[in-house]
Amino acid sequence: MNIPKKADVIDVGCRDGFQLEKEFIPTEDKISIVKGLARLGFKKIEATSFVSPKAVPQMQDSKEVIEAVKGIDGVVFSALVPNLKGAERALSAGVGELNIVFSASETHNMKNLHMSVMDSLKNAEEIIALAGKISVNVTVATSFGCPFEGRVSESQVISLAEKVLSLGASGITFADTTGMANPIQVYRMMKAFVEKHLDLAVTLHFHNTRNMGLANIVAGLQAGVASFDASLGGLGGCPFAPGATGNVPTEDVVHMLHEMGVETGIDLGGLIDLGKYLEKLIGRSLPGQILKAGKSTDLYPCS
Amino acid sequence: MNIPKKADVIDVGCRDGFQLEKEFIPTEDKISIVKGLARLGFKKIEATSFVSPKAVPQMQDSKEVIEAVKGIDGVVFSALVPNLKGAERALSAGVGELNIVFSASETHNMKNLHMSVMDSLKNAEEIIALAGKISVNVTVATSFGCPFEGRVSESQVISLAEKVLSLGASGITFADTTGMANPIQVYRMMKAFVEKHLDLAVTLHFHNTRNMGLANIVAGLQAGVASFDASLGGLGGCPFAPGATGNVPTEDVVHMLHEMGVETGIDLGGLIDLGKYLEKLIGRSLPGQILKAGKSTDLYPCS
Repeated sequence: MNIPKKADVIDVGCRDGFQLEKEFIPTEDKISIVKGLARLGFKKIEATSFVSPKAVPQMQDSKEVIEAVKGIDGVVFSALVPNLKGAERALSAGVGELNIVFSASETHNMKNLHMSVMDSLKNAEEIIALAGKISVNVTVATSFGCPFEGRVSESQVISLAEKVLSLGASGITFADTTGMANPIQVYRMMKAFVEKHLDLAVTLHFHNTRNMGLANIVAGLQAGVASFDASLGGLGGCPFAPGATGNVPTEDVVHMLHEMGVETGIDLGGLIDLGKYLEKLIGRSLPGQILKAGKSTDLYPCS
Repeated sequence: MNIPKKADVIDVGCRDGFQLEKEFIPTEDKISIVKGLARLGFKKIEATSFVSPKAVPQMQDSKEVIEAVKGIDGVVFSALVPNLKGAERALSAGVGELNIVFSASETHNMKNLHMSVMDSLKNAEEIIALAGKISVNVTVATSFGCPFEGRVSESQVISLAEKVLSLGASGITFADTTGMANPIQVYRMMKAFVEKHLDLAVTLHFHNTRNMGLANIVAGLQAGVASFDASLGGLGGCPFAPGATGNVPTEDVVHMLHEMGVETGIDLGGLIDLGKYLEKLIGRSLPGQILKAGKSTDLYPCS
């Protein structure tokens, strides 16, 4: 099994996880998690989202979060931006990278962003022009399936990604927004794309909604992808399936990568402690399984 | 990604799951689950365990369970047997296959069966002789790691499996008893073993304790293994890690295999219904994620 020796894990829980929390998480608690992650060896952390505070009140403190962490050395703090206004706010707060998200599926894009995919592309073009030297990553949501339309044409996804690249995006994330991807599909799509774009920063964003998240990561590694989004504790969920889990848990991903001999530069012990702290902050247990079972190398006394 | 076009899934929940339930599951409920599974296209179901009723009161009705289902056509009903006495009881009840379980790790075998691995091998030899025409599968527990000793030597595991074969076992199951396996390890160990024993029935038994269960199944498929144990709803657990999940959920495994284009002959819709029925029987929700999220092909209405 031929896989990269090193991989990056990007924690996105402070955006993709917190945005689904009903109770407002105090700003200082959000900052404590972002700062906690920043100490553990992550190169990039998606720290917040500059969406409309009316639409997503949980993210109303995005400016404060970025301003509290942006000085920390060696870590890029990125933020999701839905439109030009969000991008202006994010840039003015001092983010290290913008992340634009839109869907490969027209129906999902319309439901989520109230615009066509074509309009989202125009939107991305304007944001990239505005960002100047600040890098812009584009996340193509529903890349492996749409909860409304079903399987999305692979050539449509790839062609959308290539259009995005031609606009000047510095990296592409293919997102399995509702956990529909399977390992064969991931391997096939990514193998072709990575071979064509050898020098590009390609990231995979999996949800563990149907228990295939870590299997999809291994398939991505086999296709040559070496960057993965994940969420501390598996914070997050699926708006379509109450009770279903969301993002792959960061500790579980880092644990698997280390067990497979793939270096991440991330302090797994510290990550598990931070996951437990997050569980206390939000007052409930999270789906991450390493939080419950410990590492494979944690042995039990014999007597 | 080169994988088999067909795979067998063996449900072991009525043994590996029920045995950990504290409340006694009424015999007729156990039988209803085994019969329910038997209607869904499984070729083999591990239906119960002929352990000492004193040691495991939950399994005191193993004879009744086997006698109630053994006439059903097209399905092999197997049972775990720990020793010669259990094998006699199982054969007399009319099981279709015996499954002997012992560990590759001395410490785990001593804790679990109170005997050395060498004595377990002698035990297996006697049971195989007693079974005559009834086939005997041997499960090598802790094949991918021991919770007391850590990583078990791969050559020790393989050499144990080969000793077992020389005694006349008809099949081998490599079990990741406490969820310590990782995909690279599974691929490496299984690739070498399967290539050497092309005609042998090799099964992999994974626990999802550390979220790697389905990734390990894909690694097993890539190594040429086409038979996997799983447990309805993910029933079961880990005696060492309270709150941690146990066996890979059967519906999640079958769903992933079908999504990957691997035929199982199993009715996934019926399996999901049976999993929900099991949740009602035991009065709590199970870890299986397809039970919560539905299939990838279940679409949501657009308006």
